[in-house]
Amino acid sequence: MSSILIRDAYALIDGKTDRHSIYITDDRISGIDKKPEGFAEDTLIDGSSFLVIPGLINAHTHTYMAPLRNIADDMPFMDWLFKGVNPVEEKMTGEDAYYGALLGMIEMIMCGTTTFNDMQMHIHQTTRAAKESGMRAVISRGLVGDSYDRNDVRINEALEEMEDGKSCDRLTFMLGPHAPYTCGPDYLRCVADIAKEKGLGIHIHLAESQTEVETLRKEHGCTAIEYAQKAGCFDVPAIAAHCVNVTDNDIQILKENNVSVVTNPASNMKLGNGFAPVPKFLDAGINVAIGTDGAASNNSLNLFHEISLLTLIHKGVGKTPVCIGAAEAMKIATENGAKALGLEGVTGKIQTGYKADLALLDMDTPSMIPPNNIISSLTYSANGSEVDTVIIDGKIVMQGREIKTIDTEKVFYEAKKIVKK
Amino acid sequence: MSSILIRDAYALIDGKTDRHSIYITDDRISGIDKKPEGFAEDTLIDGSSFLVIPGLINAHTHTYMAPLRNIADDMPFMDWLFKGVNPVEEKMTGEDAYYGALLGMIEMIMCGTTTFNDMQMHIHQTTRAAKESGMRAVISRGLVGDSYDRNDVRINEALEEMEDGKSCDRLTFMLGPHAPYTCGPDYLRCVADIAKEKGLGIHIHLAESQTEVETLRKEHGCTAIEYAQKAGCFDVPAIAAHCVNVTDNDIQILKENNVSVVTNPASNMKLGNGFAPVPKFLDAGINVAIGTDGAASNNSLNLFHEISLLTLIHKGVGKTPVCIGAAEAMKIATENGAKALGLEGVTGKIQTGYKADLALLDMDTPSMIPPNNIISSLTYSANGSEVDTVIIDGKIVMQGREIKTIDTEKVFYEAKKIVKK
Repeated sequence: MSSILIRDAYALIDGKTDRHSIYITDDRISGIDKKPEGFAEDTLIDGSSFLVIPGLINAHTHTYMAPLRNIADDMPFMDWLFKGVNPVEEKMTGEDAYYGALLGMIEMIMCGTTTFNDMQMHIHQTTRAAKESGMRAVISRGLVGDSYDRNDVRINEALEEMEDGKSCDRLTFMLGPHAPYTCGPDYLRCVADIAKEKGLGIHIHLAESQTEVETLRKEHGCTAIEYAQKAGCFDVPAIAAHCVNVTDNDIQILKENNVSVVTNPASNMKLGNGFAPVPKFLDAGINVAIGTDGAASNNSLNLFHEISLLTLIHKGVGKTPVCIGAAEAMKIATENGAKALGLEGVTGKIQTGYKADLALLDMDTPSMIPPNNIISSLTYSANGSEVDTVIIDGKIVMQGREIKTIDTEKVFYEAKKIVKK
Repeated sequence: MSSILIRDAYALIDGKTDRHSIYITDDRISGIDKKPEGFAEDTLIDGSSFLVIPGLINAHTHTYMAPLRNIADDMPFMDWLFKGVNPVEEKMTGEDAYYGALLGMIEMIMCGTTTFNDMQMHIHQTTRAAKESGMRAVISRGLVGDSYDRNDVRINEALEEMEDGKSCDRLTFMLGPHAPYTCGPDYLRCVADIAKEKGLGIHIHLAESQTEVETLRKEHGCTAIEYAQKAGCFDVPAIAAHCVNVTDNDIQILKENNVSVVTNPASNMKLGNGFAPVPKFLDAGINVAIGTDGAASNNSLNLFHEISLLTLIHKGVGKTPVCIGAAEAMKIATENGAKALGLEGVTGKIQTGYKADLALLDMDTPSMIPPNNIISSLTYSANGSEVDTVIIDGKIVMQGREIKTIDTEKVFYEAKKIVKK
């Protein structure tokens, strides 16, 4: 039994920020303002200068790619991929991926992210790093293929990693067919069938670029969303990352099939793909979550940056100051993320019975002063460095900006070596 | 005589980052890699884990409005102005403006800004705060009026403040006619005439909103740029903030008259004004600088956030990954800013003979690791919190993120009281 009391802090609960005391017993929130019977705190956190928020949920990333940060920028997409990213990625060993994942997790924790949804290419390494870091994660091995093959090596690797992950109840798994342009229709059908049989969700990139959509239209006579639907990807709980280039009919399909869309504003702009029609998704009632994508296309895993972009760019595109407000953006980055990841009722809210996944922000920093509207300060003023303390699964993972679960110096040292090779 | 040696740090010089040693004697850079004759450092800074950049230049802001941060968000423009911002602003006293300006300066220094260009409404207060904070500033009293009146009270206040500022050589002044929609053509002509006579530059908001441009078209039969030109605003060195809604002919006028344009990406999006055609300005050879605008419309004075937006949004708008790259963005935020403010050859570059206005970033933070491309890390990965040390005019203003010139606790305390009134 461990127990933490966060006493009298501002807390973001149901879109409002008021002073609350939060009781944590073991891995869960055991009370808000009401001391649970027999509660005696091992650890007391004076909340007077803190704002407690639900830990942020990075709903689409490739954590192990953190060492590829800034490896290839300001160049055409094909050069970025084939001359910049791929040559370095191909040289990465499993050990590199492990340190890369840890580097990404350090950055995420320091910016208040407690859960991430990952698509990776080096089995066991993200799982290994997540177990050590204390983060909550949903992990998919990236799948690529052409034919209906139940013995596909990557699918087997994905299933093997799930066995590995069983020892840690912070980890869950999905199947991660990469994208329509890397997964033929038969392969995609095979992955969808296995997902259905095993009760797994699907995590896929869809409609990211104009080229993808044009090629599909030419070769298969359909949109990316239709392509994935036809293959059965939406017959299971599905997460569609990007969705930049979609039709109104696509939006209807996504809604009808309860697909969660993960928007990645920085990555979509940086690679010249444009702006996803997020306000349309929200109007249609689609569950929208947010992600950073990998560090090679962002080049940061700081979700506060992404949240700020979410609240700003659609006001610019739509030429209206009233579009994706602060409270909605924070919901997208927490509750909606949890829903997308199958973690509704588990994380993403400060509520009794939920896992204690929390970020505590220092309110005595210029970006938070004065506290005119604290939710606004989270989306329009904060840069992520306000995060002082992070609690995941009831454990203090960072305090005073010192990460307690990872040897950060060692990770920094190893990460610097990776690209030099 | 004071002297500082920054030994063997990465330094951003002419768009490249290599290891250098920087010698500072009194207020100026006295050598790079070459020890000046007779130099003996009072202060040695070990640069091994630092990246030194020219201090950033916030080329358009309203510093005293920092306490209005997050006062009115996610609402239509007219509600924002008349129900949100104005009622609070009208209650602000001179003392409030002073503490407000200090709050803004704390935020700017902590994010590596060493110089700012300000338009303010409470004379003497921004000047007073800038003198104390150690920052370099160009200050304009906001001017509003209708008729040609050389005895206009605001113009006299502006001139009076210039006298006050003479005692501090970090401060220079401009005339600040607010905007075409608040300055009639005769008043604008009056301000332009006085600027010409006194050798002053002009700092003005132009073509910020679609409404402004439509009203001018209807009432004066011209664009905002043409309106300012006709009044003589461009006969002196001029800074045009915003320039979101401009024609190709406007761009030609701005270029021909050597007007510097200051883009304010966050503010333009947040208020629903859209995206300024910055790539077109650059193609035309216009000097483009960057600013945060005031905290009521951003809601941050963190120029790293603005630089990141600059490099991302135009790639999104133009659907190309090759548009306003990292090196160009850093030049916009430093050299170009200095040029706009009449400080070319004074600040904005790390060069012998320039003022020692520098920001030192900690390279041992996740956003800067690994150092694959350090300039990219500044625009795509950094969030401003990497800034560890700031030197302005040869004086260490912040070290280890502790500001040495301002009692931050007192300012935070006073700033919190302002809005409560």
